[in-house]
Amino acid sequence: MQKQLPISVKANAMADSKNKAAKLVGITVPKETNCGQWYVEVVQKAELVEYYSEISGFYILRPPAMHVWNSIKKFFQSNIENMGVQEASFPMFLSATSLAKEKEHVEGFAPELAWVTKAGDKDLEVPVAVRPTSEAVMYPYYAKWIRSHRDLPLRLNQWNNVVRWEAKQTTPFLRAREFLWQEGHTAHLTEELASKEVLEILELYAAIFEKLLAVPVVRGKKTEAEKFAGASWTSTCEAFVPANGRGIQGATSHALGQNFSKMFGITVEDPEKKGEHINVWQNSWGLSTRVIGVMIMVHGDDKGLVLPPRVANIQAVIIPVGLNAKTKPEERTKHMEKIQELKATLQEAGVRIQVDDREGYTPGFKFSDWEMRGVPLRLEFGLRDAAASIVATSRRDTGEKGTIPLAELATQVPALLEKIQEDLYTKAAATYESRRLKLTEWDRVVPALDSRNVVIIPFCEGIKCEDRIKELTRSEDQEDEQGRKMPGMGMKSLCIPFAQPDGLVAGETKCLNPECQELAKSWTMFGRSY
Amino acid sequence: MQKQLPISVKANAMADSKNKAAKLVGITVPKETNCGQWYVEVVQKAELVEYYSEISGFYILRPPAMHVWNSIKKFFQSNIENMGVQEASFPMFLSATSLAKEKEHVEGFAPELAWVTKAGDKDLEVPVAVRPTSEAVMYPYYAKWIRSHRDLPLRLNQWNNVVRWEAKQTTPFLRAREFLWQEGHTAHLTEELASKEVLEILELYAAIFEKLLAVPVVRGKKTEAEKFAGASWTSTCEAFVPANGRGIQGATSHALGQNFSKMFGITVEDPEKKGEHINVWQNSWGLSTRVIGVMIMVHGDDKGLVLPPRVANIQAVIIPVGLNAKTKPEERTKHMEKIQELKATLQEAGVRIQVDDREGYTPGFKFSDWEMRGVPLRLEFGLRDAAASIVATSRRDTGEKGTIPLAELATQVPALLEKIQEDLYTKAAATYESRRLKLTEWDRVVPALDSRNVVIIPFCEGIKCEDRIKELTRSEDQEDEQGRKMPGMGMKSLCIPFAQPDGLVAGETKCLNPECQELAKSWTMFGRSY
Repeated sequence: MQKQLPISVKANAMADSKNKAAKLVGITVPKETNCGQWYVEVVQKAELVEYYSEISGFYILRPPAMHVWNSIKKFFQSNIENMGVQEASFPMFLSATSLAKEKEHVEGFAPELAWVTKAGDKDLEVPVAVRPTSEAVMYPYYAKWIRSHRDLPLRLNQWNNVVRWEAKQTTPFLRAREFLWQEGHTAHLTEELASKEVLEILELYAAIFEKLLAVPVVRGKKTEAEKFAGASWTSTCEAFVPANGRGIQGATSHALGQNFSKMFGITVEDPEKKGEHINVWQNSWGLSTRVIGVMIMVHGDDKGLVLPPRVANIQAVIIPVGLNAKTKPEERTKHMEKIQELKATLQEAGVRIQVDDREGYTPGFKFSDWEMRGVPLRLEFGLRDAAASIVATSRRDTGEKGTIPLAELATQVPALLEKIQEDLYTKAAATYESRRLKLTEWDRVVPALDSRNVVIIPFCEGIKCEDRIKELTRSEDQEDEQGRKMPGMGMKSLCIPFAQPDGLVAGETKCLNPECQELAKSWTMFGRSY
Repeated sequence: MQKQLPISVKANAMADSKNKAAKLVGITVPKETNCGQWYVEVVQKAELVEYYSEISGFYILRPPAMHVWNSIKKFFQSNIENMGVQEASFPMFLSATSLAKEKEHVEGFAPELAWVTKAGDKDLEVPVAVRPTSEAVMYPYYAKWIRSHRDLPLRLNQWNNVVRWEAKQTTPFLRAREFLWQEGHTAHLTEELASKEVLEILELYAAIFEKLLAVPVVRGKKTEAEKFAGASWTSTCEAFVPANGRGIQGATSHALGQNFSKMFGITVEDPEKKGEHINVWQNSWGLSTRVIGVMIMVHGDDKGLVLPPRVANIQAVIIPVGLNAKTKPEERTKHMEKIQELKATLQEAGVRIQVDDREGYTPGFKFSDWEMRGVPLRLEFGLRDAAASIVATSRRDTGEKGTIPLAELATQVPALLEKIQEDLYTKAAATYESRRLKLTEWDRVVPALDSRNVVIIPFCEGIKCEDRIKELTRSEDQEDEQGRKMPGMGMKSLCIPFAQPDGLVAGETKCLNPECQELAKSWTMFGRSY
């Protein structure tokens, strides 16, 4: 088994290979003042993605990004397997004919469909579209396979790629024309069974954010205006990007009700009333590589990426320090051997560990390089450390320094990584908490948005009122006290949180929109958003 | 956690739900006399695939098929990870412009490319093709990322779907317009390092066939006529379908040499000669869902599918027997509880176990149903078995019956499954061995093919000679002694086996083609093939 530095590391460094004291070309703009440009630099310099220059809006996902995705996949897959969900793989194409059958659902996707019209040099008789999502591909077969209540529940999931040829500006992970995701599609006998699953899946999605990506989310229900086209109701996890104060939808789990089962004729005989038919109750739920973008936005800093240890392909890096031209060759060899021993110890302890033994680079260059790549923990090991039987540690998230006795590496490093994981979450949760303002005065709303908060307000849940709120909260692009450009977009509803704050008096509290005469139905979270 | 029968089971059975003594509609044609129709029935009735009626040549892969694929994926992924191969995900589209740059490689795929020409209702400025394979997508980035010998080896693999819009007749797994596969693409500093990897990967492929799918293969090298377009040489695993005597390519691992690195300009400075540049040595290797088709063909019988235990989603099924209208309800309840205990015991022992407690079906119906689905082991458990503290066993592969004391279930069932796995391989290996005829007389070749063998013959390895051999061995479609239609196609070379038989005398043994004047270079395996 060949041990090697990840490609990524070597390629990046080589740009400077002729300059022995090369200085790393790191992230050039601060996250706070230019979040957009910062993001574009981080995803490329940390080698999460490469832009696919041949076709705009497409990105190459590189190994560190795939590691995050695979960690998520493993967690989610084992959980849904335990729930009884099975895996399938449906074709990537939809025919124009079958699309025509259920226009309503497809309408929303129509402007973004990629159409295959030719095979080789022959025109296809009927063009086919690349799936933007698979309801229309799958449900005709649900109608075929479900013939009795005994065939229920039918629960299938697939991991695949979908294409939505976005006209809007694309961004790696957050809005790409092709992305990876899982899509679960299930059918149940009763509304109750279906609803239960919607929320079980939402909890798994929340766990992916909270436990793996260390990203806090607010669980809730989408408003009528924001729910999935064709869903009866949509549950969601909503995350938050402190740097620009924008909300970002994490993942959604939809109760489709009987909408699709009526459209596709998916019925069973009522087990309790012979001869009568019931349309099945369906759900669909999806989580995409977008979550990686959210994670980058939430944790990254001006030095670059910050990876939560549980999803980092490299959790810790050992960097030899204090060796120089005067170091005797045999001393160097012995030291490097010792480092390999430390590596082996940590590997055995389950740590994904890398040694950076590149020659021709200063420790300082290496420190910055690994910081940019987001590796959670740096271990420095010099001749004096060896003599003292310790390694020096430096946390990526806080910069905090420390030492660990060699004898305790196998226990203390994993513990420290867990601590980093927890601290990342705790810090992000406290920030989100402090930026989620519960407001009861309309005049405070726009200033709150301009100060990069989201707001929770009494809301009537009306579709028109929501449209009007969006207009009312639109403001000119403005600069804040530090000269930062603030986006002036109107706010939209993010979700109606399941955990409702106190203070709404039934029959009394009014919708906060000053133009609205309705009573508030709930506290609803609004914000500028992705 | 909800326990349930797989959907598949329920759906199939329901067709007959009104008829209490329903007889299963099993496989209607014998494998030996109508292998093609037999295959089409098995893949659908065992619910491995559903035909996608909207677009011909596309298939839905259902849970039992995905289980086989995921077993393969898990095995291969963990092995290549240990070798240092990393995962990536490249876009599914190739632009027409970049295709034009390297016409030669693409030429072979051109007639099968699916072209996206429209997004929404707008024509694309430059059409894009769905990848048929990813050399042209990936290698421009290899050129970008590989800047020094320190960036080598670069070893990436991706699991994805590709489209080849075949004009030929399609068949599930064996020839589909879209299929799942993995494609590994690596770059090395030296030919030696590259070659070593080609064969390491080939061994992993062979292990997938032999250890997981219980399918014997012959390892070897493709002839010049049959190697991958653009490869320097191609290594292959060749399997065999006894029912029709045809060879079938299992998986290939290619040494691309410097062909692509010259085309794409992938070079590094020679670490030993400053200033001089070396084109890197590349490999590519792929294994697709086709292997599932090979497995079905090799092991299936007239009752349906036969799954090797290691890849079976259900390894054993427990069927209650001997219960009838006279059985007292409390006796029935107690018996069914006991069965749940047996299930729990086996689950704990790591067996993927299912209980068939469907009511309204005879044990006989259930036996046939699970046989059709290929479940390796049936466990029958009746009141008398309970009294005697045993279960009755029936092997899917041989039909062999036995009993296991309840106290030994947790050890004997896993052992029996392993035995079945081994026996499947041993039997198939013996058959392949006996049908691989080493011939030194030309006149025996066609009769050997007609008797459903492949042949190993002295061969000059010439491209023209190979073409001629194909013509010379073409015969009219004919019927054998039992009236079976035999395909009269000409034979092509399958591989030059790495394990060369004895008997070739250098400078003396002639190529077996009677029209050829050349000396034989090797024993080469030829056959009618898929």
